[in-house]
Amino acid sequence: MVDKGQHLGEFEIIARYFAPLATEASALALRDDAAVLAVAEGYELIATCDTLVEGVHFLPDDPPDSVGYKALSVNLSDLAAKGARGHVYLLALAVRRDTKPSWFEAFSAGLRELQQETGISLVGGDTTSSPGPLTITITALGLVRHGHAVLRLGAKTGDRLFVSGTIGDAALGLRLLKDPALARAWNLSDQDAAFLINRYRRPKPRTELVIPVRNFAQSAIDVSDGLVGDIEKLTRVSHVGTVIEAGNVPFSAAAQKALAREPELLAALLTAGDDYEIVAAVPDASVAAFAAEAKHKGVPVTPIGRISGSGEAVSVLGPGGHALALDRKGYAHF
Amino acid sequence: MVDKGQHLGEFEIIARYFAPLATEASALALRDDAAVLAVAEGYELIATCDTLVEGVHFLPDDPPDSVGYKALSVNLSDLAAKGARGHVYLLALAVRRDTKPSWFEAFSAGLRELQQETGISLVGGDTTSSPGPLTITITALGLVRHGHAVLRLGAKTGDRLFVSGTIGDAALGLRLLKDPALARAWNLSDQDAAFLINRYRRPKPRTELVIPVRNFAQSAIDVSDGLVGDIEKLTRVSHVGTVIEAGNVPFSAAAQKALAREPELLAALLTAGDDYEIVAAVPDASVAAFAAEAKHKGVPVTPIGRISGSGEAVSVLGPGGHALALDRKGYAHF
Repeated sequence: MVDKGQHLGEFEIIARYFAPLATEASALALRDDAAVLAVAEGYELIATCDTLVEGVHFLPDDPPDSVGYKALSVNLSDLAAKGARGHVYLLALAVRRDTKPSWFEAFSAGLRELQQETGISLVGGDTTSSPGPLTITITALGLVRHGHAVLRLGAKTGDRLFVSGTIGDAALGLRLLKDPALARAWNLSDQDAAFLINRYRRPKPRTELVIPVRNFAQSAIDVSDGLVGDIEKLTRVSHVGTVIEAGNVPFSAAAQKALAREPELLAALLTAGDDYEIVAAVPDASVAAFAAEAKHKGVPVTPIGRISGSGEAVSVLGPGGHALALDRKGYAHF
Repeated sequence: MVDKGQHLGEFEIIARYFAPLATEASALALRDDAAVLAVAEGYELIATCDTLVEGVHFLPDDPPDSVGYKALSVNLSDLAAKGARGHVYLLALAVRRDTKPSWFEAFSAGLRELQQETGISLVGGDTTSSPGPLTITITALGLVRHGHAVLRLGAKTGDRLFVSGTIGDAALGLRLLKDPALARAWNLSDQDAAFLINRYRRPKPRTELVIPVRNFAQSAIDVSDGLVGDIEKLTRVSHVGTVIEAGNVPFSAAAQKALAREPELLAALLTAGDDYEIVAAVPDASVAAFAAEAKHKGVPVTPIGRISGSGEAVSVLGPGGHALALDRKGYAHF
């Protein structure tokens, strides 16, 4: 079954597609099975890990370069919420035996693109065959000065809750991929549809927010499983409550068109996830400075609510000021 | 479909089964999505990552506690070959939606057992659903003093090549699991068969060799994909050649019985993998000290060959002194 033109060994896959991504000396050019990392004095390491499964976190039809981009991006999003940039990462890939060289080529190109945008480097990993769906786990390591990491824990009563960018685009993009006829129903232009699909396939990590978050947020989280559910996680760990004003949640022009045609989409957009935006709890005294620094970095941030007490509950007020009924708060795997 | 007695949410799975494994403060009790790790001055971090796929690296029937044990063990084996103990690890788990609480219970018990044996602690990870085979990726981090890590690169002409423990047991154990009638053909007692199966299911990492390796080896690798193939990896990276004397490779009493009945198994045992033993290249001047320190730690080590020049080739001499013909040198995923 080995067609030399179409089939590569593990050694060849690593040498050809992944070694060029290992730009740090610590990676030992991926010719070892471990990386040796120096951590500068006074710094701490932030470690995070996310798995993407074909058919669960991305679609079988998604272009492989977008899958590579997304797999790394969701980890950099976690780090950005901690106030940390990505330093190095390990890549564990479980792929079908008959995966073509062209797939590895495109997948690694997606990784390379985000490496170049953010300065992170591949240092190790594992490439293994699997009969099942393509499964990608990336473990990303970031560095922050000792004691400067921002956690989920730490939000205080009275803090303003900000969110970056816009919410719900990826959820709409996923729906469009599953049912292209929705573009017409939602009155979307081709550009609108492409924008929403791109937000699902190639989320950009909010790395530009690392410094504003580190300087001014008491607590932060990235939105991966749904805005309301992820805010609830922050709220619970911080032993506070939160009020979110749905009318203030920022939506893109394309999402606004869909919402105008189908207002009942609102609850879905607030809970669907895949946004990879950052939610930050900022004390009143720092609100102006946080907003100014985010603006300076080119990232729109919008106040959407407030930390409200010790209830550990999240309430969402609809545009009319009434509590919004939500069937669920976020994506649940189980 | 949600049966509360049988079905757990992600939050509950983490709180019930994995948070008790997070004994380090840096884990933030797994209530965040990242860990914050301090690295003591003068130390470097060794990072390694291995994926286990059901049906590829373990059998669907293997007890879940052995799967947990093995998933962590193979990573600690990588670290031991670097001269490093495990410090902390991240666990990425892609499991079927209908996975029972009893599975998580047993799986986490296997992890706990090895944590207690080695002192490593869980600090983070990701739990996600997958329609496909159970897939487990562990990223393990170890610490060594700056410059003290042992790499694959570094073997020099004249070095003696040692291997720990015995080779081929796991390969025989796997064959027995697939065809229990072999026990009879190989003249094995029930204890022999249980020993071999246990070597496949629950490999013990050679953590006791960390100090002898760090003190005396110029180069080392753990045997995961086959003795000959893994020695070839070390040989290539070090730009040397190697001669292995098959007659000196250590086999357990059970494996010797199988070999006596079926001598042609020899080539398979030398190349099958799953041994998780350590191969170390030790200069002549340190051979006595290495052997003594390994013995003191309770780990048998056996000289099986020599680094032989700059050919980057591995030759295996059979018991008669003739080159042994091997169809393959190790397990290949692709």
